[in-house]
Amino acid sequence: MSHSAIQTIMQHRSIRKFKDKKLTNDQIQTIVKAAQMASTSSYVMAYTIIGVTDERIKEQLAAISGQPYVQKNGHLFVFCGDLHRATQLGAPDEIETMQASLASPEQFIVMTVDAALASQNAATAAEDLGLGICYLGSLRNDIRQVSEILQLPERVVPLFGMAVGYPDHKPEQKPRLPFEVVYHENHYQPFEQQLPFIKKFDEKLQAYYEERKQNSRNDNWSKQIIRKFSTPIRMDVGPFLHDKNVNKQ
Amino acid sequence: MSHSAIQTIMQHRSIRKFKDKKLTNDQIQTIVKAAQMASTSSYVMAYTIIGVTDERIKEQLAAISGQPYVQKNGHLFVFCGDLHRATQLGAPDEIETMQASLASPEQFIVMTVDAALASQNAATAAEDLGLGICYLGSLRNDIRQVSEILQLPERVVPLFGMAVGYPDHKPEQKPRLPFEVVYHENHYQPFEQQLPFIKKFDEKLQAYYEERKQNSRNDNWSKQIIRKFSTPIRMDVGPFLHDKNVNKQ
Repeated sequence: MSHSAIQTIMQHRSIRKFKDKKLTNDQIQTIVKAAQMASTSSYVMAYTIIGVTDERIKEQLAAISGQPYVQKNGHLFVFCGDLHRATQLGAPDEIETMQASLASPEQFIVMTVDAALASQNAATAAEDLGLGICYLGSLRNDIRQVSEILQLPERVVPLFGMAVGYPDHKPEQKPRLPFEVVYHENHYQPFEQQLPFIKKFDEKLQAYYEERKQNSRNDNWSKQIIRKFSTPIRMDVGPFLHDKNVNKQ
Repeated sequence: MSHSAIQTIMQHRSIRKFKDKKLTNDQIQTIVKAAQMASTSSYVMAYTIIGVTDERIKEQLAAISGQPYVQKNGHLFVFCGDLHRATQLGAPDEIETMQASLASPEQFIVMTVDAALASQNAATAAEDLGLGICYLGSLRNDIRQVSEILQLPERVVPLFGMAVGYPDHKPEQKPRLPFEVVYHENHYQPFEQQLPFIKKFDEKLQAYYEERKQNSRNDNWSKQIIRKFSTPIRMDVGPFLHDKNVNKQ
């Protein structure tokens, strides 16, 4: 039965347990071609997608992420921002001229947005095929090592991974912030105006965490966010980008 | 007739001419709720979507972008990375503790990817509704002024806009880089191995530009990319992010 795109999108949940069945080449091609149809800034297509099939590499990446589903899935994609290709197109004098632009935070936004748009098309296409997906920001736990493992040259950055496969569980959907918090009209709505909606959301989430069957706990969204940002993580990402000659101030 | 998500994605083209018909509130809600269903790093939902309906604001933003369809469309969305909300959740001592993490390039990746994933769901949902879309990186032509116009507080960054509406033209789809250039297996494929495919793509694009009815010209992809990066643009984005207290090295 065919679902509309909106139905597919609204059914999304992250899948962290997959059946032991690999994707076919046809499925991989369909997913990557969908990714490529996303909009791209100035037609640069500033990304490369690396499909990891070598079990030893998957094992190394799973160790970095600390997540077993980085290894155990139907296919593993790593989405990389890529401004290397652009550089190599030029003659030596042209490459020299391009350095300043390529190293700028503006172009780091371009590569990151390009890669992310492509990845979300990949996610939707995979779900349309009846597969499940999970984004893996956890690869940035050791971004430098991931870059070495995948042999990424200058100006290629491993932004995140995506595990894809046949779902072996059906987790509940996680509630989202209320529409009123996320969508503003004409101007940014001051936090004070968002707060009553956030409080209601916290209450809803508190109940969700208390009532759920697995990992029941006393928690809400605000508490999670404060905890998350109270311990700096991945502070080596900035220096790594600098060494890659991107996102330089 | 219902299309599958993959069919919708594969039909994408950027629409730059819209009929004079506004989106309904229902359509806007459907699009934003689809955006919200995208995956989000650590459940932060680090973005805010601003819908611009005030014609004076649209005029100002169109002047910055230099694109008439920033004003003339069915609805204008601006996708902002948002770490302001997270900060405000804490008590003063908690806010102090969160500063180092919030200012890091790692969290700048989080806000940029979160906003981009949401936006691509919005794009697909809009297209599923029979609407057309165009991404507007051009708002970064003067990112500081856009931030002022939309009254964005500290740690809220206007990343890009999206014009949505009823298409008033049907442009050809732009060819994408060959699969072999964008998709690599296990390791990054050196540029030399990508080059033959890029050359073929350049030839295809050269023919496309020569043969097309409007704006026929002698051009190809490699030439465009070299031209694009030979003149640095938006070099104020880096300092702007710094002043917003994000993406600090």
